[in-house]
Amino acid sequence: MSGLSVAVVGATGAVGREMLATLGRRAFPVGEIRLMASARSAGTRLPTPWGEVQVEDLATADPTGIRVALFSAGGARAKEHAPRFAAAGAVVVDNSSAWRMDPQVPLVVAGVNDEAARAHQGIIANPNCTTMVLLMAVAPLHRAAGLEAMVVASYQAVSGSGQKGMATLTAEIEHFRRDLGALQHGGWADPGGELYARPIGFNVLPFAGNPAEQGYTDEEWKLVNETRKILDAPSVAVEPTCVRVPVMVGHGLAASCWFSRPLAAEEAEALIQMAPGVALWRDRVPTPLDCAGKDEVLAGRVRETVGRPGGISLWVVGDNLLKGAALNAVQIAELVI
Amino acid sequence: MSGLSVAVVGATGAVGREMLATLGRRAFPVGEIRLMASARSAGTRLPTPWGEVQVEDLATADPTGIRVALFSAGGARAKEHAPRFAAAGAVVVDNSSAWRMDPQVPLVVAGVNDEAARAHQGIIANPNCTTMVLLMAVAPLHRAAGLEAMVVASYQAVSGSGQKGMATLTAEIEHFRRDLGALQHGGWADPGGELYARPIGFNVLPFAGNPAEQGYTDEEWKLVNETRKILDAPSVAVEPTCVRVPVMVGHGLAASCWFSRPLAAEEAEALIQMAPGVALWRDRVPTPLDCAGKDEVLAGRVRETVGRPGGISLWVVGDNLLKGAALNAVQIAELVI
Repeated sequence: MSGLSVAVVGATGAVGREMLATLGRRAFPVGEIRLMASARSAGTRLPTPWGEVQVEDLATADPTGIRVALFSAGGARAKEHAPRFAAAGAVVVDNSSAWRMDPQVPLVVAGVNDEAARAHQGIIANPNCTTMVLLMAVAPLHRAAGLEAMVVASYQAVSGSGQKGMATLTAEIEHFRRDLGALQHGGWADPGGELYARPIGFNVLPFAGNPAEQGYTDEEWKLVNETRKILDAPSVAVEPTCVRVPVMVGHGLAASCWFSRPLAAEEAEALIQMAPGVALWRDRVPTPLDCAGKDEVLAGRVRETVGRPGGISLWVVGDNLLKGAALNAVQIAELVI
Repeated sequence: MSGLSVAVVGATGAVGREMLATLGRRAFPVGEIRLMASARSAGTRLPTPWGEVQVEDLATADPTGIRVALFSAGGARAKEHAPRFAAAGAVVVDNSSAWRMDPQVPLVVAGVNDEAARAHQGIIANPNCTTMVLLMAVAPLHRAAGLEAMVVASYQAVSGSGQKGMATLTAEIEHFRRDLGALQHGGWADPGGELYARPIGFNVLPFAGNPAEQGYTDEEWKLVNETRKILDAPSVAVEPTCVRVPVMVGHGLAASCWFSRPLAAEEAEALIQMAPGVALWRDRVPTPLDCAGKDEVLAGRVRETVGRPGGISLWVVGDNLLKGAALNAVQIAELVI
């Protein structure tokens, strides 16, 4: 067999499918592809770029011989199974939050802190999709001027909640479109979705993630803590608000950043333009629809702050399933093989 | 005739219709109702709470006898006709941006700076919808602790662009729903809407308003300048990002505020709870769908900043056609008659 034995764990999910497509598209040296998921999905056959493959039950799968395992199976499964795969010799790239803040586990945004991957001990964490998209544009500014404080508001797509998120938005749009007039005066009927606390169709939910400390969501704390770890800047002040919007794919972020010195818009644009994996849009404003299906993160509206002066405000948008998840996981695997 | 002669100028628009409904709902002392619009709409008959009324051509309408004129007819028409109506003895409440920054014209959020209305010389400006919704919750904090800096990101409904906005979103949702899979991978067909630079269906547009100075939009400058005028705090630092979202009605704002002293979440909540016209939601997070059709602005997620400490982050949402436009205009009229 030429090529490596590669496992995709959580293969039936929205990110798992993108991982398979991304491995194929980037001609990752796959010799053998193995698919794993929960017992519920085990036995089903999925198409892959290397032919149809039967899904194995993660709980009983034997990791012997696997060189690279891309996990997108949730935190609990990652906590339980990633060490087992690593002990068998695999490099595990885990997309859940389970290992991200573990001091032994590198947290890597490919193109931002590639060197951190080298210190891995079998597990490397793939950052939160929102943080990852944002830092693609903010990290080059930080390296030049030293990020001190950042206020961020997110506009997060429903696919961040997986296929259930997209199914919920689809169902709610169908529900509401039958009586759009009702949306205007508060007479709407509740679509009764179970995924989110309030409807997402024709609405925004200013509470993305789950309740956590001090009135912030876990998603917001990820922006705080993962930014600090990835930039190796433990005292950076990050003030986050994470909001779900009725968009299928593409997380947007409005960020205002202040540095250890004033940064001019022209310099900030030049820094972003030189950064790998980011496209700077100068004349048009990039939207979620523009980034969907693209590897590059798109940055725009780079401007000098008019509030507290000396800072930079900008807009960043990226495909949360690609650079925000599957692409970065594959890029990490490329760094370590 | 008992009651006053009241004119609604721009009566056929989204805000004009809400003005008529709001006058009726609040039992404003209307003796005679006159409707005006551009020549294009003149002659049509509109239903009002006082019966069907024929729309007059604003350009030729005689303002004699009108006591209150509520304008929502755009900046150019307000610039031209508001002085004519005021000279004839009417109090003009104008919803456009034409007069807002004129030092002779009060800019009034009812419930926030009512006393400013007294100094009017015939014209009173109704603030920008986004600013108005936000300040309903932030003004009480400012009065207690002295606002120094605020970073704001908006989530603005399409009805802020009038009926055209709602028609555009409706058409684009119908367009995209036929092939939702295309949204995920960038293969979507452009719906060809003319109102916005990019599609708004299943998308967000991080550039609400028109291009203005220093890379900010006019909508963003309104947040800066109108906040300063309404709060009578000319040195407050406001850093804005205005984003259009695929929501019919209800502008949301994520704001992080710092004051001349640290403010605890408990005190901030108590201040908002005492403020008129704002409902504080403690256990649930208010969304645009929750505020549509409601007079009250809804505030939630009041929390102490975890970035630069001592500040307050919060979420505010309000019906942009009611408190953000028609309701406030009628409330101003109630203050001055």
